[in-house]
Amino acid sequence: MTSIGVDLGGTKIMAVLVHDGIVVEKAKKSTPRIGTPDDVLDAIAKAVAKVDPDDRAEAIGVGVPGPVRPGSGVLPIANNLPGWDHDVDVEAGLSARCSGRRVVVDNDVNVGTLAESEVGAGVGVDNLLGIFMGTGVGAALVLDGRLRQGPRGIAGELGHAFVAFREMESALVGRGELEDYAGRRMMEARARARHAAGEPSALIDLVGDDRMKSSTWEKALVAGDAMAASIVNDAAEAMAAALSSAIALVDIELIILGGGMAERLGESFRADLEQRLAARAFAGITAPIRGAALGDTGGALGAALLVEERP
Amino acid sequence: MTSIGVDLGGTKIMAVLVHDGIVVEKAKKSTPRIGTPDDVLDAIAKAVAKVDPDDRAEAIGVGVPGPVRPGSGVLPIANNLPGWDHDVDVEAGLSARCSGRRVVVDNDVNVGTLAESEVGAGVGVDNLLGIFMGTGVGAALVLDGRLRQGPRGIAGELGHAFVAFREMESALVGRGELEDYAGRRMMEARARARHAAGEPSALIDLVGDDRMKSSTWEKALVAGDAMAASIVNDAAEAMAAALSSAIALVDIELIILGGGMAERLGESFRADLEQRLAARAFAGITAPIRGAALGDTGGALGAALLVEERP
Repeated sequence: MTSIGVDLGGTKIMAVLVHDGIVVEKAKKSTPRIGTPDDVLDAIAKAVAKVDPDDRAEAIGVGVPGPVRPGSGVLPIANNLPGWDHDVDVEAGLSARCSGRRVVVDNDVNVGTLAESEVGAGVGVDNLLGIFMGTGVGAALVLDGRLRQGPRGIAGELGHAFVAFREMESALVGRGELEDYAGRRMMEARARARHAAGEPSALIDLVGDDRMKSSTWEKALVAGDAMAASIVNDAAEAMAAALSSAIALVDIELIILGGGMAERLGESFRADLEQRLAARAFAGITAPIRGAALGDTGGALGAALLVEERP
Repeated sequence: MTSIGVDLGGTKIMAVLVHDGIVVEKAKKSTPRIGTPDDVLDAIAKAVAKVDPDDRAEAIGVGVPGPVRPGSGVLPIANNLPGWDHDVDVEAGLSARCSGRRVVVDNDVNVGTLAESEVGAGVGVDNLLGIFMGTGVGAALVLDGRLRQGPRGIAGELGHAFVAFREMESALVGRGELEDYAGRRMMEARARARHAAGEPSALIDLVGDDRMKSSTWEKALVAGDAMAASIVNDAAEAMAAALSSAIALVDIELIILGGGMAERLGESFRADLEQRLAARAFAGITAPIRGAALGDTGGALGAALLVEERP
């Protein structure tokens, strides 16, 4: 079977042509920064044409940055796509632009986890959770070998687990969700608040008023910066709390850890996190953590696999 | 179909004879306080004989106070049963005592939730969570219409969700799990610690050195006791945090709330909890909370239903 997978992100669109599970063509395009959802769909159609100019693929899978309404191809809201503040039927809109071919759509983290589950770090494991640390924290669940979408399409959102229930209103930044401690955007907000209160940090010295990247955190840690170490320690402990809760709630056998921030924090962060999970285990039952294996193309490949998962 | 359901608790054993989904006979026995697992199995067999002296039922379901090893009838550990500190095959042991009839076993909270799902407060809902506030906090998941046991048999353990990740080591009592705030045993420990530190409370006036019951908490709240109100407020907020996390992780459409403590706290607690859930909703998606409908016999009835669920 030949299918196309598209990973639609806030900055770039990646398309792959997949034949019998193997990526045979690959293309990247910038995501339009201004305009409307129609402009975004036009850009996706161009990326599709680039990897498959002769319409060889039977169908197209798309991973999108937001929760998709189940049983439909509708993405209601996407904060990082231009003008995407209302229901947009991605399946119908893209099918119309691609010779009427079948289009299936799901959340980008869901399809990335599907790829890891079927051809990446999770091969052979039926119950796993993929978690990706970047600007925010995205996660997805595979239960009994099937990607869980859920009746309202929100399943997997462990980034929104409340790990500090008393901080709902009192916190300086955030309201006590995992993403408030382990997502890069909020980690930076914490660092800036502490700096404004008088605490020095290499994090600020490195970037000034520019945005902190994952590499900024890596550099500050290597330099022995105390504030960076403290904020990353909180991130690890919050991750351990949320992941342990998830293991006890749905009984997960494997955790796959990915995303730019996790890659920069590296093997020592993964191994440390595994130990923190063991310390929090219920009834002695925990789960190993493996690094994501598919890197940047995992999302697009997973979108192509979705075509077979949802025939 | 005629089957028997048994709810094995730390203080009592309840057995029911169920014909086509209706309870037609019912019996109670005390759980042995001393002895061995064999004594407990003997007591269960007697309760079974009491509701079904002529062996009319084809099979027997049992709800047990602990996680059962999946694909087996083995309960490895039960702190509140005498001498139960090693693997005991409940299915084989009880079948041998009951004319070789088929026996199926699962966790008591799992079977109680199964009953609510099939004939109680959850009828018609495919994705729900049952949560029971008592000495501890027990919970169970029904996903896509099926009770989730999980590959290691621990699924549903929301009582062990970490809702206060910084309290792993620093807390006066507990380590930041939901049960540490919303389970009666730990709520009492908190009250006693605050009292020992000099804070007065009707809770202590009511019971002295005796154990606080659910009714103790109800009385103290009615009397306007500040400490009881503060500890129950923490329980509600911790419940809201854990339940909201569960909704976002697995996409649950309904929460069924039961257990002695929840019954005493009553309708105002349920309605308040529903509002707290709405305040923490991810993407505006929450779930209603309904009171458990089956009361005391829910567990035994669910155990009988398990016989049909796992043929």
